[in-house]
Amino acid sequence: MQQITSKKNDIIKEIKKLDAKKQRKKSNLYVIEGLHLIEEALKYNVNIKQALVTDKYINHRLVKEYYDNSYEITEELAEYISDTKTPQGIFAVAEIEQENKFNNYNGKWVLLDNVQDPGNVGTIVRTADAAGFSGVLLGDNTADVYQGKVQRSMQGSQFHIPIVVADTKYIMNEFKKKNISVWATEVNKNAKPVNELEKPNDILIVMGNEANGLNKEILLLADEQVYIPIFGKAESLNVGVAASVMMYHLVLKS
Amino acid sequence: MQQITSKKNDIIKEIKKLDAKKQRKKSNLYVIEGLHLIEEALKYNVNIKQALVTDKYINHRLVKEYYDNSYEITEELAEYISDTKTPQGIFAVAEIEQENKFNNYNGKWVLLDNVQDPGNVGTIVRTADAAGFSGVLLGDNTADVYQGKVQRSMQGSQFHIPIVVADTKYIMNEFKKKNISVWATEVNKNAKPVNELEKPNDILIVMGNEANGLNKEILLLADEQVYIPIFGKAESLNVGVAASVMMYHLVLKS
Repeated sequence: MQQITSKKNDIIKEIKKLDAKKQRKKSNLYVIEGLHLIEEALKYNVNIKQALVTDKYINHRLVKEYYDNSYEITEELAEYISDTKTPQGIFAVAEIEQENKFNNYNGKWVLLDNVQDPGNVGTIVRTADAAGFSGVLLGDNTADVYQGKVQRSMQGSQFHIPIVVADTKYIMNEFKKKNISVWATEVNKNAKPVNELEKPNDILIVMGNEANGLNKEILLLADEQVYIPIFGKAESLNVGVAASVMMYHLVLKS
Repeated sequence: MQQITSKKNDIIKEIKKLDAKKQRKKSNLYVIEGLHLIEEALKYNVNIKQALVTDKYINHRLVKEYYDNSYEITEELAEYISDTKTPQGIFAVAEIEQENKFNNYNGKWVLLDNVQDPGNVGTIVRTADAAGFSGVLLGDNTADVYQGKVQRSMQGSQFHIPIVVADTKYIMNEFKKKNISVWATEVNKNAKPVNELEKPNDILIVMGNEANGLNKEILLLADEQVYIPIFGKAESLNVGVAASVMMYHLVLKS
């Protein structure tokens, strides 16, 4: 296995560039880091292009499966390319799956419009997976899921369900054409409390921006405007929590 | 109003010390920062000892109400004492409320044992407020709520419901003595799915550590071990999400 010791090595330079969203989009590649995520990625057959490991992991399954594209790196290089303070020393460069594979409108989907906090997006993907949702649609201006922080907060759920970049209004219209319920989550005078509605089997739930919610055009496109009742003095819920409560409300039979 | 321009001023030095949990505990004081939180604190009569503002806020209600203990500070000092990158320039030093005021076991309570991520604790307090819970009990080894990050994530909910530091096992026993249901949240073979249980009016829900859950002693103290069903391939839920789904499940009539 080839060893890399210098920051100036081309492979290291290319990986470092993937810190930028623009470069991830251009190359269609991103970095998966850490033992748990790598193992989930292997289990779910993510398309891996390169493996980089410190000497601790030279016998890991990742290296065995991708031997011709595996490199041993130093601890210093692991720190250099890592997104965390104390890297485990195992990295894979993987392919970003193409959005055009979206053709399954069955089951329950959540669409994020303008959800900008990476932690919120990650939490929603993880909960969507847990709640048995079909997948997550990342609408306009939503945080990129291929950055390190979101990758970690998803805990592998990104490999369990499809995560598809989509145009918010286009995808809402596609669901509507198929007569699937589209709910926009928003507190306003037209909205109904979620617990007063029938629970559809197939549904698209649309969640909006942390501070500003959804814009009017999107609200009007939805079949229903729906809110989670607030019983106390809080003004609102965190969007990750609101999405999670909504998703579980739809799947828990009580 | 007195002006402060130097980091070496005693008032600035004292405030800076409150960054440390130890000092907050010793002095029984903490710092509230930012317009929204300050306004919530004023609305809910938090006991404020000092106000520090940049020239933008010299006419704010905070200064009017606490004029004798208000100080104008420079932008540089605001940055120095702030926990954020771009401080708004309005701070209050407030008193930490004493835990011995806990004597109300009515309604629904959530107890956190060993929940270490400040963001999770903040989220749970905010959702507990929204869901109409009576309050949040911070059990053993749970993140301090008086640090900047938790303060902000609670969005004022810390002033709406009591947040009480408590000994985990002691407080569970107190609820049990009063014949109030105590549920421990944990995925194991003795646990029951939350949606198969009656929803009690008065209840204590106990949530455990992000990685390790609750320890055996605590599980055995509870009346019920309860879990949120996982329908997909995720291994678990984030503890903030699990607590939120559990709380809303108990209060939403569907």
